[in-house]
Amino acid sequence: MPIRTVLLGAGPGAAYFSAGIERLKMGEIESYGIPFGNLFRSYRPEDIQIVGVFDVDNKKIGLDMYSLTTKLLNDENVPKTLKDIEILRGLHCKSLQGLPIDAMGLDDIIGDSNIAMNEFISLLDKLKPDVIVNIITTEKQIQVNNESEFIKLAKSCNGTASLAYAYAAAEYSRLHNRVSFINLTPPLLANSPGVVSYYEKVGGLIFGDDAATGATPLTADLLEHMAERNRKVNSVAQFNIGGNMDFLSLTEPERNKSKENTKGSIVNDILGYDAPHYIKPTGYLEPLGDRKFIAMHIEYISFGGFTDEIVVTGRINDKANLGGVMASVIPITKAYIDRGYKGTVSSINRFFMKKPGPLGTKNVSRIIAYNELMKELKALDII
Amino acid sequence: MPIRTVLLGAGPGAAYFSAGIERLKMGEIESYGIPFGNLFRSYRPEDIQIVGVFDVDNKKIGLDMYSLTTKLLNDENVPKTLKDIEILRGLHCKSLQGLPIDAMGLDDIIGDSNIAMNEFISLLDKLKPDVIVNIITTEKQIQVNNESEFIKLAKSCNGTASLAYAYAAAEYSRLHNRVSFINLTPPLLANSPGVVSYYEKVGGLIFGDDAATGATPLTADLLEHMAERNRKVNSVAQFNIGGNMDFLSLTEPERNKSKENTKGSIVNDILGYDAPHYIKPTGYLEPLGDRKFIAMHIEYISFGGFTDEIVVTGRINDKANLGGVMASVIPITKAYIDRGYKGTVSSINRFFMKKPGPLGTKNVSRIIAYNELMKELKALDII
Amino acid sequence: MPIRTVLLGAGPGAAYFSAGIERLKMGEIESYGIPFGNLFRSYRPEDIQIVGVFDVDNKKIGLDMYSLTTKLLNDENVPKTLKDIEILRGLHCKSLQGLPIDAMGLDDIIGDSNIAMNEFISLLDKLKPDVIVNIITTEKQIQVNNESEFIKLAKSCNGTASLAYAYAAAEYSRLHNRVSFINLTPPLLANSPGVVSYYEKVGGLIFGDDAATGATPLTADLLEHMAERNRKVNSVAQFNIGGNMDFLSLTEPERNKSKENTKGSIVNDILGYDAPHYIKPTGYLEPLGDRKFIAMHIEYISFGGFTDEIVVTGRINDKANLGGVMASVIPITKAYIDRGYKGTVSSINRFFMKKPGPLGTKNVSRIIAYNELMKELKALDII
Amino acid sequence: MPIRTVLLGAGPGAAYFSAGIERLKMGEIESYGIPFGNLFRSYRPEDIQIVGVFDVDNKKIGLDMYSLTTKLLNDENVPKTLKDIEILRGLHCKSLQGLPIDAMGLDDIIGDSNIAMNEFISLLDKLKPDVIVNIITTEKQIQVNNESEFIKLAKSCNGTASLAYAYAAAEYSRLHNRVSFINLTPPLLANSPGVVSYYEKVGGLIFGDDAATGATPLTADLLEHMAERNRKVNSVAQFNIGGNMDFLSLTEPERNKSKENTKGSIVNDILGYDAPHYIKPTGYLEPLGDRKFIAMHIEYISFGGFTDEIVVTGRINDKANLGGVMASVIPITKAYIDRGYKGTVSSINRFFMKKPGPLGTKNVSRIIAYNELMKELKALDII
Repeated sequence: MPIRTVLLGAGPGAAYFSAGIERLKMGEIESYGIPFGNLFRSYRPEDIQIVGVFDVDNKKIGLDMYSLTTKLLNDENVPKTLKDIEILRGLHCKSLQGLPIDAMGLDDIIGDSNIAMNEFISLLDKLKPDVIVNIITTEKQIQVNNESEFIKLAKSCNGTASLAYAYAAAEYSRLHNRVSFINLTPPLLANSPGVVSYYEKVGGLIFGDDAATGATPLTADLLEHMAERNRKVNSVAQFNIGGNMDFLSLTEPERNKSKENTKGSIVNDILGYDAPHYIKPTGYLEPLGDRKFIAMHIEYISFGGFTDEIVVTGRINDKANLGGVMASVIPITKAYIDRGYKGTVSSINRFFMKKPGPLGTKNVSRIIAYNELMKELKALDII
Repeated sequence: MPIRTVLLGAGPGAAYFSAGIERLKMGEIESYGIPFGNLFRSYRPEDIQIVGVFDVDNKKIGLDMYSLTTKLLNDENVPKTLKDIEILRGLHCKSLQGLPIDAMGLDDIIGDSNIAMNEFISLLDKLKPDVIVNIITTEKQIQVNNESEFIKLAKSCNGTASLAYAYAAAEYSRLHNRVSFINLTPPLLANSPGVVSYYEKVGGLIFGDDAATGATPLTADLLEHMAERNRKVNSVAQFNIGGNMDFLSLTEPERNKSKENTKGSIVNDILGYDAPHYIKPTGYLEPLGDRKFIAMHIEYISFGGFTDEIVVTGRINDKANLGGVMASVIPITKAYIDRGYKGTVSSINRFFMKKPGPLGTKNVSRIIAYNELMKELKALDII
Repeated sequence: MPIRTVLLGAGPGAAYFSAGIERLKMGEIESYGIPFGNLFRSYRPEDIQIVGVFDVDNKKIGLDMYSLTTKLLNDENVPKTLKDIEILRGLHCKSLQGLPIDAMGLDDIIGDSNIAMNEFISLLDKLKPDVIVNIITTEKQIQVNNESEFIKLAKSCNGTASLAYAYAAAEYSRLHNRVSFINLTPPLLANSPGVVSYYEKVGGLIFGDDAATGATPLTADLLEHMAERNRKVNSVAQFNIGGNMDFLSLTEPERNKSKENTKGSIVNDILGYDAPHYIKPTGYLEPLGDRKFIAMHIEYISFGGFTDEIVVTGRINDKANLGGVMASVIPITKAYIDRGYKGTVSSINRFFMKKPGPLGTKNVSRIIAYNELMKELKALDII
Repeated sequence: MPIRTVLLGAGPGAAYFSAGIERLKMGEIESYGIPFGNLFRSYRPEDIQIVGVFDVDNKKIGLDMYSLTTKLLNDENVPKTLKDIEILRGLHCKSLQGLPIDAMGLDDIIGDSNIAMNEFISLLDKLKPDVIVNIITTEKQIQVNNESEFIKLAKSCNGTASLAYAYAAAEYSRLHNRVSFINLTPPLLANSPGVVSYYEKVGGLIFGDDAATGATPLTADLLEHMAERNRKVNSVAQFNIGGNMDFLSLTEPERNKSKENTKGSIVNDILGYDAPHYIKPTGYLEPLGDRKFIAMHIEYISFGGFTDEIVVTGRINDKANLGGVMASVIPITKAYIDRGYKGTVSSINRFFMKKPGPLGTKNVSRIIAYNELMKELKALDII
């Protein structure tokens, strides 16, 4: 059975994901890079059907995913089936302000955010998604503590586009079809008590926040490696530099702060003490493209008071990694919806997210989160 | 209660370990680098009492551990308590043949390996160890399939010094005091069915083989990280170069082979397929000393068929790491002896050893092995 | 003959340098890390005599260099001869504003920058330096185009402390003793036409700007390596993170900008085109101390259109490197003073400085600059 | 005017080079990766015309370079012009013994090495090369001290194939057309006095030995960087691992020894003392292909006795680098032939070769060798 999926944000993440999913369906590629990819049974990545993609960039709206993907992947051979997926106008809420993009959302065009919201919900009703995935450009972080604050910020477009989208999805969930909303960006949704309780009420599921791709999951596992040997970590430095919009947008301090917050907490959560650390997206360097360069330095004390050091460097395609996360988390959360889950599910967030919700959830190493989730998925007969 | 401990091999491993343990007792250092070091309760690293150290290097025999450690650590301030520990003559069985060492064991001096063996057992009886730790120079690997082969090779000194020592410890276990024999070197003891079954019979415990220090446990966790994301690993290269006897001795092909065997199996065990790999101790470079340089390259395919790469480099003090392993595994195995365990215990080997016994035991990532062992230690009220 | 030397700035740079020089005189260490250190003849590092150190930190003024160095190097065995060198109050000109330091200069105490300046000049006259070295905390960059602007900014303390010091040294040069003023910090002195021409007039020598220590000289040589093979450099990323005041002070945007400016120009100067690059001091991480962590990534196209990559990482003690530069450049510039040179000397700046003066001087690889300078030093009979 | 060129060895080096040269002629690629590539005037890489390629692998002989290159570069779009270049049978002299290749040379077929040699010379006479480039699989090293030994070893095929080819080229030079023979492999030709003097006599030019590609030229420049700062290098470790025949063939000890010899001498030559080093091709790992992984560690003492470390890692396509060297050295040496040079030219060897001939020539950093060669090329009106 197809898993009807809507993507919010027609950037490289959407392009890598949709090209990969279509290639997977056609048997062109293996399920490499999809966690649990070799274990899925009735809910499978191949069942994902992208039914619509929303964006607010005037240059993208109206295009199909084939032409977008051809350009963003710089690849002439992307699957033709992507021609059937249209890029539609979504909600803006000024989320791209300050960036060099000619952006216009339904809210900008209609001029009334309330009406725009309803318009967006009825668009959702036409597409009938089971899963909605948020991969728009990084916004600032707002923690929403109660439902009325959530509703107010969302309907007025005074919070973030992510909040507005999450609210629209909840309303769609309440009125039409119970949906899984997956927030793979830093703004706090699954970490906002007001959002999670509203989803619980309407019978939807919200997951997040910030997909655990790139160097941070690796850092988590390396820190766990240290912690288990009772090594004292003196310092952790982690640099990232890349050439896509993610990095360009981080040249704005508030967006950068947002990204930094979801990364730093792993140190204290895993080591049990706040080892001095510098873990930040560092800069923008256009030629690196989607394949960012990472560098990490960890110094620690081992037995007898001796000091060791390790350095990790690498070239990592964040967007391909994100595609793998999406291809895994979409069928999983659909299965949870079908099994009647509501609100959020921390075991899923703990493996897939940098800042796992609900609020207060501790980061553990990915290896441990993986094994716990695997047990749960087996118990639920999902893998 | 003190845990009476005998060390086989008066090399840098013994020096780092004994200096560290004494410093720990005196409160000079923290328990950093000792797995479970912050969790121990009644069996503690501080309870370890080194009652004797055996070697066959004529330059070392007769010295005390204070003078040896001062020299090997190039440190004028090692604890004075080390003056009480004497270096005694042990069994040679030609284990240092081919290396530039003036070596002479009891077997060489007495001229009859059978009598030498009995002499060594009676020396053990005087020292009354609870735990015996094998950290002699790397020997070749012999798998011993039955007890009679074990006894024959050991008594004749025709196998390895490790086999002879393991047999002596078993006899001591049978005649005097149930002992834990921990093999932290590559030769197959816990992986030899004939050795394990003999220990079962005499009521002793044998652990091994080859302490999981250095880069290999890290490689195991990195591979698990890949496996959980279903990434296809194209290749793994791992280099090590250091300046101590370990690396010098590996310039001999058979010893090197022995080391290589215990490292390579992790790839297949963890990934589930034999990704092309080159994992070997690479060379000897004197100025690096005990703090070896490691370099590792992993290339893998992620979602969509894209290729990522990571590189890990570092300076790691193997001997300090080994000391931490010893400080943890000695109290743990003493606790198991006291709880009546016999033969070997795979959960302990799986975390602490590169090639965990008994024969057929699979390597898992260290993080998983750690968590399983932790549960067991809690259940047994050890931590 | 002693080379009487005054240091401006009693930070780790002064500590490393003064401890090293005294140790060198006492024969405790070799001349390692001093460019041309093994070639000097009549003007030698051992001839350097530190006659005074100026600072504006109230916690440091009045101390001797022995107690300061003991603390900053965390070393109990620094040479006792450092007790003879006093830390005196210098000029502040608000150069430490915004940093957590209780700073007070002669200008703050006297309340009139003009009188403070004269007071400082008369202090210099008492110390009778041949060479004055500027190693104060990084300030913003001001280019001073003519002499009157130089005099005005310096006397009013409205520019930087570096400008004020440079003017005082020029006046001392004019009135008392021809001096070499070496600016090893980023503010533009040797790159300010107004400063250089004033030194020419008074018969002094000014060198700068910003000592070529750390990763930048290495980057320069790596880029030259690429250029000579006609490789097309796609991108250059260079990160630095450290734990001393240099890095802390760079958390202030203007100081960071100042540092960045002197680093970036090497790309265009050496490659002949402005390859996309990100070369910046990146962050502050206290436990790294003076031994910063660097990471560099260079991607380039080689023959046939194939792409290669190299990554450089390292731990580098900037302050020790700076000490080596000081120990070399002080005797060299004293020799130039004695040979009647005035203004500045670009061949010296090209090897020793990140942004070599006078204005318009091109960066070349260090290896080339070294060989040119070596020829000149031989021709002048200095080495 | 075309520079008629014969290649010895139809391996990946020939494939990368010939594809690159044809692409360069067609304007498909830039001259990136060709030293002096942007400076050439009348002798240009575009003038190179490959007139024949020799090999002894039965699977390759009779193919054209188009089909070979398509396969070796795994690229469907290599230039069609390569169809005109045939792979001919050359001399074997058992050079591939021990490798899994079905090899047969003229000497094997004819059964008489003397006649085979004459046959090969007459093949050369038909192709009329100006330049002959030796890029066959690494052989052992033999130093040939006089001409009679050279002639004897070559004609009997009892030395190496490289010696036989060099002799054939010398005879061709004497009888037909003065030729430049460029040895880009480790066996000692330009370092054999007997070979160089014979070339001097016949009026040919011989260059070598072992092309300075890969990590070694980079190491040379890094060591020069250290030397100029008078840093004391404690140790140098350099690893290489790759997936082509070069690395596979090095699993044979004698070939490996041959490679090692040409690398190690740079340390002493550049630093002036023999810093402990481990510089060797390390292993074979098939998936890395022609793009080898390198790792290098340098530890050194800087001013004040402090220790710094740098690590270099990278992915480098040796064969593409070799192609760039060939594209540069072929026109240069043809120009020297036309200017009447005989024997060998050390300035060319010093930049392009790992072990520059004639015997006794010192390695200098590449940056210095480059600048000296550049001056000479300008003086000779070549660039």
